[in-house]
Amino acid sequence: MSANIRIVLVNTTHPGNIGGVARAMKNMNFSELHLVAPKKFPHTNADARASGATDLLESAVVHETLEQAIADCQLVVGTSARGRHIPWPVVDPRELASIVEPISADKKIAVVFGREDRGLTNEELHLCHHHVHIPSNPDFSSLNLAAAVQVITYELRMAELYVDENRDIRPQWGTEWDIDLAESADLERLFAHMEEALTDIEFLDPENPRQLMPRLRRLYLRAMPDKVEVNVLRGILTATQKQTKK
Amino acid sequence: MSANIRIVLVNTTHPGNIGGVARAMKNMNFSELHLVAPKKFPHTNADARASGATDLLESAVVHETLEQAIADCQLVVGTSARGRHIPWPVVDPRELASIVEPISADKKIAVVFGREDRGLTNEELHLCHHHVHIPSNPDFSSLNLAAAVQVITYELRMAELYVDENRDIRPQWGTEWDIDLAESADLERLFAHMEEALTDIEFLDPENPRQLMPRLRRLYLRAMPDKVEVNVLRGILTATQKQTKK
Repeated sequence: MSANIRIVLVNTTHPGNIGGVARAMKNMNFSELHLVAPKKFPHTNADARASGATDLLESAVVHETLEQAIADCQLVVGTSARGRHIPWPVVDPRELASIVEPISADKKIAVVFGREDRGLTNEELHLCHHHVHIPSNPDFSSLNLAAAVQVITYELRMAELYVDENRDIRPQWGTEWDIDLAESADLERLFAHMEEALTDIEFLDPENPRQLMPRLRRLYLRAMPDKVEVNVLRGILTATQKQTKK
Repeated sequence: MSANIRIVLVNTTHPGNIGGVARAMKNMNFSELHLVAPKKFPHTNADARASGATDLLESAVVHETLEQAIADCQLVVGTSARGRHIPWPVVDPRELASIVEPISADKKIAVVFGREDRGLTNEELHLCHHHVHIPSNPDFSSLNLAAAVQVITYELRMAELYVDENRDIRPQWGTEWDIDLAESADLERLFAHMEEALTDIEFLDPENPRQLMPRLRRLYLRAMPDKVEVNVLRGILTATQKQTKK
C-alpha cells in the first residue's frame, strides 16, 4: 500500500521538521516524501532529526508548486483544522484510512500537510478531494508537523495490518507464546491440590470454607494459565506441603 | 477519562523530548505528566518544544524511581519493542485504548515510556500488567519519544470520542465488580512477600532464581487482582511461612 501513498509537505519552515517527518514515515514503512518549496532543504537539522531515515530525505522530490506535487495523484487529501469557510468533506484519520486502504494497491494517493504556523491555504485545500482533521483538543489543536504525519501514517499502517488476513504477524504476547494453555482437567487438578495444601497449612477450614476456593478459582482462571505455569504452581504447593510434614 | 491517565517517562535524556511529549499530550487533552529521574529538567529546550504546553511541564511530577511513579496505579502499561525473552501480554495501541477506556473513569492508569535509546529494562517491564507495542516497520522500529506518546494518546482520545453511549448496559464482569483493583504498590509488596515465602520453603533458590519470579509476576499481573484477592494471597503466604517456622 505505502508505495502508492505520498506525503506532501507544503512550505515547511523548519528543516528539523522535515527530518522528523522522514523518521515518522519510515517508522510506519512509508517512503514517498514530496516537498513543495521548503524554506531550507537539504539541511543538517533535517538529517539530525531523521535519525536513520536520511534515505527518505535523499530520495525526496522537491516541487515548486502543490499542483505539480499532486499532478499524477488520484486521491488528494489535505490536513485541515476545523471550520473552514466553505464546507468540504472532512474525515478523521481512521475514516481516511478506511477510504485509502481499499484503493491503495493501484491508485496514487497524496496526503498534504501545510505550514507549521498556518497550515494550508483555502486555495490549497480546494485542490483536495477530502480534508482530514485530527480530533485534537479544541483549546490546543495544533500538532507538531512530524506528530501529525505520525498519526496519519500510523492509521494507514493499522488499516493495512488489520485488513491483512494473516494478523499473526502481530503476536498477542510480544513473541510466540511457546507453551500450550492448560486444559480444564489440569486446572481442576491444580485446584484440588490447592484446596488440600491450604487445608494442610490451616488457612482453609473445611468446616467453614467460606468463598475462598471460588475466589481463588476466579483469580487463576482469569489469567488463563499455561501448562508450565500450572506446573510451577503445583510445585509450590508440593513444597509447601513438605514443610507441614516436617 | 484523561485525568486518571498519567504518562510516565523514564530516564529521558533529551529535555526537548519532554517538551515534545507535553505538547503531544495537551494536543490530545491529557495533562498528567510524571518523570522518573530525567537527565535534565527543567530545561529551556523542554519549554521550546512544548510550544504552549509549558503548563504541563510546570505541573509535572518528578520521581526517583518508577516504582514511586506508579505506586497508586491500578493498571500499568509499558511500551515495548517486540520479542522480549519472556512472553508477556502485548497489545497494540488500539487494543490498549479498548482496555483503558471502560475503566478510566474510576481507575488510575499509567502508560510508561522508556529511554530514547533503549526503552525500558526487563525489570521495569515486569512491573507492568500489559505491554503495548506500536506496530512499526520492523526494519526501522524506534519512534521518537514524543511521536510514540502522540500515537498512544491519540488512540486513547479516539476511544473516548468513539465510545458507544449504550455500552454501559452490558457490564464487563456480568455484574459490578465490587472491590477496587489493587494498586501497583500493593502488588509489589505481594511479590516481595511471595519471593520471601518461596525462599523460606526452599522452592526458590536465591543463588539460582531462574525465571521464577518473572513468570509468577506475569501470571498474577495478567489477572489484575483486586485488593481482597491480594490480601487472600498474602494471607496464604503468611500461613505458609508459619509452617516453616514450626
